[in-house]
Amino acid sequence: MNLAAPKLGVSARDRPIGVFDSGIGGLTVVSALRRLLPNEPIFYLGDTARVPYGGKSAATVERYSLEITAMLLAENCKTIVVACNTASALALPRLESTIPVPITGVIWPGARAAVAATRNGHIGVIGTRATIKSGPYERAIRALDPALRVSARACPLFVPLIEEGWLESEITDRVIRQYLTPLVEAGVDTVVLGCTHYPLLREAIARFLGDTVTLVDSAQNCAATVRQLLEKKNLRAGAEAAGQLSVALTDSPDAFLEVAKQALGLEIGTVQLREVIHPAHN
Amino acid sequence: MNLAAPKLGVSARDRPIGVFDSGIGGLTVVSALRRLLPNEPIFYLGDTARVPYGGKSAATVERYSLEITAMLLAENCKTIVVACNTASALALPRLESTIPVPITGVIWPGARAAVAATRNGHIGVIGTRATIKSGPYERAIRALDPALRVSARACPLFVPLIEEGWLESEITDRVIRQYLTPLVEAGVDTVVLGCTHYPLLREAIARFLGDTVTLVDSAQNCAATVRQLLEKKNLRAGAEAAGQLSVALTDSPDAFLEVAKQALGLEIGTVQLREVIHPAHN
Repeated sequence: MNLAAPKLGVSARDRPIGVFDSGIGGLTVVSALRRLLPNEPIFYLGDTARVPYGGKSAATVERYSLEITAMLLAENCKTIVVACNTASALALPRLESTIPVPITGVIWPGARAAVAATRNGHIGVIGTRATIKSGPYERAIRALDPALRVSARACPLFVPLIEEGWLESEITDRVIRQYLTPLVEAGVDTVVLGCTHYPLLREAIARFLGDTVTLVDSAQNCAATVRQLLEKKNLRAGAEAAGQLSVALTDSPDAFLEVAKQALGLEIGTVQLREVIHPAHN
Repeated sequence: MNLAAPKLGVSARDRPIGVFDSGIGGLTVVSALRRLLPNEPIFYLGDTARVPYGGKSAATVERYSLEITAMLLAENCKTIVVACNTASALALPRLESTIPVPITGVIWPGARAAVAATRNGHIGVIGTRATIKSGPYERAIRALDPALRVSARACPLFVPLIEEGWLESEITDRVIRQYLTPLVEAGVDTVVLGCTHYPLLREAIARFLGDTVTLVDSAQNCAATVRQLLEKKNLRAGAEAAGQLSVALTDSPDAFLEVAKQALGLEIGTVQLREVIHPAHN
């Protein structure tokens, strides 16, 4: 695959942060980035034509991630953020060895924050069925500290509840109770939101868990890692930069885009529709 | 595509009914077939590696349906049942013009039953977001009787609730009320279950709708159409036949297979794992 070299004539610092997800959920990472880095330009690409990546083979997820990353490099992005748990779990090593700009996923920032947060050494992880089955947070947490205990729970109703926009609803509160009661009873003191959709349920989940359980938002921790990276590499946009947000999708947006925009308070102009580039593989 | 000719040496009547769906949901059609035609052998093929078909392009759904149908013909099936709303809506004409055995989908049997059932001329249709957006039941009902009124409602939480096995749960009852109240208030007297998963919620939905609304189960109506077809073509298995059920999937089964087996009371032996055949296209 030929990955585009950065365009000349634009200062590296003024180039956008490229963010991608299999769909719309990764906008929670964009929202966290805008709060932390309000003057950074961001180009978001959601591969809605092929959503979800969860459940697809590692080879397919790698190929899709490379294709989407190539599209972001063609936008002259200075760094890439993989705002998708499945792609972070399955495609990060391949992306890191292939693309010419620094790259950040969501798994390690979330795992590190959970390891730092737990006091009793028992961490809960929630995510989609595919994420929980493949266990990337569990592996990352155990790699950081093998003595920690991890209890994982798939919450397959959270994504459809969020996509319906039922963020504050008695139904959602009951589903949260049904899924999270076993984790609370098991004694976790920290819960990782292991799906980029879940920060949209953050308030409802925090209300259920109460003050004694720390909620680790992997979108927020991913954004903090990106800020550190840009500072270390001297890639921060100038303070006078406008911080424009561009959003492109590989298939027409559905109602969930409106839900996410409103809940996250994101100003998104016209959403661009992009065809996936299928480069020759090498 | 070369479609296999029926194998010699087996009476046409003793060959299995081939049933396919993008996933496990089509087992509701198998269950209805077993009740109506207990001595018919059935070969079920669920394309779980590529589920869901809803949301994919018509060309892709046609190609997938042809590939899966070719696999069923290789099992010597005497007739094909498309137990998938998306494939029934998008691939039936192509299948009918290509394959050498009679074929039945789920849309027309459901639409015909709804048209026969309504007394006030106002029919409700519920389904996945993809089915409701593409509107196949609406088109079929209006083709049968342009004077009828159709109110459609996407119920995207039903499939994940069913796949969780929450068939009898207060949460599910509340979701049913949330989705179906607008249809009841609009005055429908008939509701079509326009998704092959939904018969698993039939009792809970009927409890909410009460006696004044007729529930049309497209799985059941599809099975009745298959019985008529086999009788008309003189393809019914002999009364002494064993009525064996074979189930094959294109990817390993998940927990939903257990939910469906138990809820439908189906006796399924070892589930076969099959790779999709990608024949040369012509």
